[in-house]
Amino acid sequence: MEQGTRPAPGLVAVLAMAAALALGAPPLAVGKSDATPIVLRDQGSFLVGGSVVTNPGTFDPIALTPDGQTIHGDHAYVQYQIPLNPRRLPLVMWHGGGQFSKTWETTPDGRDGFQNIFVKRGFSTYILDQPGRGRAGRTTTGTTIAPVPGPGPTGEQGIFIRFRIGMWPDYFPGVQFPRDAAALEQWWRQQTPDTGAVSTAAITDAAAALFAKIGPAILITHSASGVLGWITATKHGDVKAIVSYEPVGFVFPAEELPPPIPTSGGNVTGTPIPLADFMKLTLRPIQVLYGDNIPSAPQAQGGLDLWRGRRELAQLFVNAVNAHGGDAQLVRLPDIGITGNTHFPMSDLNNQEIADLLSTYLRNKGLDGR
Amino acid sequence: MEQGTRPAPGLVAVLAMAAALALGAPPLAVGKSDATPIVLRDQGSFLVGGSVVTNPGTFDPIALTPDGQTIHGDHAYVQYQIPLNPRRLPLVMWHGGGQFSKTWETTPDGRDGFQNIFVKRGFSTYILDQPGRGRAGRTTTGTTIAPVPGPGPTGEQGIFIRFRIGMWPDYFPGVQFPRDAAALEQWWRQQTPDTGAVSTAAITDAAAALFAKIGPAILITHSASGVLGWITATKHGDVKAIVSYEPVGFVFPAEELPPPIPTSGGNVTGTPIPLADFMKLTLRPIQVLYGDNIPSAPQAQGGLDLWRGRRELAQLFVNAVNAHGGDAQLVRLPDIGITGNTHFPMSDLNNQEIADLLSTYLRNKGLDGR
Repeated sequence: MEQGTRPAPGLVAVLAMAAALALGAPPLAVGKSDATPIVLRDQGSFLVGGSVVTNPGTFDPIALTPDGQTIHGDHAYVQYQIPLNPRRLPLVMWHGGGQFSKTWETTPDGRDGFQNIFVKRGFSTYILDQPGRGRAGRTTTGTTIAPVPGPGPTGEQGIFIRFRIGMWPDYFPGVQFPRDAAALEQWWRQQTPDTGAVSTAAITDAAAALFAKIGPAILITHSASGVLGWITATKHGDVKAIVSYEPVGFVFPAEELPPPIPTSGGNVTGTPIPLADFMKLTLRPIQVLYGDNIPSAPQAQGGLDLWRGRRELAQLFVNAVNAHGGDAQLVRLPDIGITGNTHFPMSDLNNQEIADLLSTYLRNKGLDGR
Repeated sequence: MEQGTRPAPGLVAVLAMAAALALGAPPLAVGKSDATPIVLRDQGSFLVGGSVVTNPGTFDPIALTPDGQTIHGDHAYVQYQIPLNPRRLPLVMWHGGGQFSKTWETTPDGRDGFQNIFVKRGFSTYILDQPGRGRAGRTTTGTTIAPVPGPGPTGEQGIFIRFRIGMWPDYFPGVQFPRDAAALEQWWRQQTPDTGAVSTAAITDAAAALFAKIGPAILITHSASGVLGWITATKHGDVKAIVSYEPVGFVFPAEELPPPIPTSGGNVTGTPIPLADFMKLTLRPIQVLYGDNIPSAPQAQGGLDLWRGRRELAQLFVNAVNAHGGDAQLVRLPDIGITGNTHFPMSDLNNQEIADLLSTYLRNKGLDGR
């Protein structure tokens, strides 16, 4: 028998397991995930990018003083899963501010997140923890972490409002967020602090190093990683498309920077970059999506009013990309009949519907082939 | 056709994929992982345990001041994978000091770690990030993270020696660690700082809460989680066995605490606990393993000499457990012909052989059934 025609031992095991299940083994349904098994050719993790600092002096192998020792930090951490027969372009998923990979994992109420949904749909997934966050904790800068819940980005009743679940303690009518206390607790606990003051340049360098390592892929960003994603795309050509959920920042050619948009939460301003860099954003499809309960007129709650300004700036960004020959699109979910989404559409109650939108977009752009 | 006899749609897909591969699709081998596919019934993540602090005052929904806001922290983060037809007892894998889940994931040179090895062997895996580490970053205490490489636990040339790869820059002859610079860099970058000063009590409470949630399971500890594992087992009866790689701490009945063991790195001392708690450690099998290049006589390098003391204390611990009717075992890997292991046997070059030891131990104890 030719070697090439024999299934590998591992495959025999897969066939045997699948056959055993088909013949009356216990049902597959577990928890709230759907019952589709996940079949992976490979999974793993690595650190990518980053910098090194070397202390002056000569290393003392007995005393182990700081002299001559190094610190490697400012890298990104990446967890990957490769399904059998994957689609050609992987999805790189990048969390937002105060968050880490959990954004894309199991939802606060225990359903499949985008990591599971898309690996089941045949996409390889690369889930990023950016430098100074989660599993990419080691930095060359250090920081002080204050646990006090405060007016900053991590106050828990504050993010309930700012991330558009409701006006604490009331949920917005029809909001796509589970109502049980356990889910809310999981969502609060998935926040995590920065472990260092890593620069935007170093963070986007690490993300670009990921694309240099894995090759062509689709970048999915959320919230604070929105602007980091635009910058990463100016640094590496293998970012083949960007889909950005609720980005809070946008780049513009320096000479075309729109005036600040005033809101009760402060001005919303673009980030100027050289025109030559901005032009790189015209080389791949871009989709920007926002959820529901964004005010259409100024209002007193600054955290909510900021979304009005950000979504307005998003339209100017999309217009600028398209004016320069690009292919950008702004989707306001309620305008297409999808209502109640919070700042976390990828884990909202209707996240399968949000995932369907992504699948459709990638299919329409010819980016989902095998 | 009866519903119970039909394979679920997901299973049909598994069968189709496996069949397609058996019939001449591309070979499975990817990177340095072995080619066995990973077939999961489910995978996901959750936060477990932890505490809540509420600021005094009344929450202001407009200003979002700290008044009346909460902070949820001090939880553990857990990532799980459930294979098809899993063995009855999952493995809970707990990292050591300055480390997180990466200990059990892809090795520094890109091979399968224990997470992949054991899910391929049919075990459900629960990989823990303890409170204040990695993906369990949110604490109620806060901390200051200094990036300076120093004499503490995270100095990189220091851990090369202290974790027994060699006497920097020289590798120990025959050491089971890859010699290429890229692997060493990955290993250094997998360190991560504490994000809070979470107490031993709170950390072990979170681990016990995990067992309360998932039920009977086998606990695998490493280094600093060794002593935390013994304490967790006194808190929850569903810790059905403990296998501890290179633990740095041990508990003893308070009235039987052995005298400190002097080393050039300082005294090695046990942790006293009530006899009634210690007796709980006699209710499940315990295996403790140490690798190679541990001095047999006092030597000047304190980081190395500490291992001599720790391994000596390990023998006293095993003796104490057995004297009280338990089933504990100390394995010195070189004594059974397995040489060159560092402080990280689970990711060393011979980690498949180390995994075989674990499989054999669980089989011999009747803990690997389905």
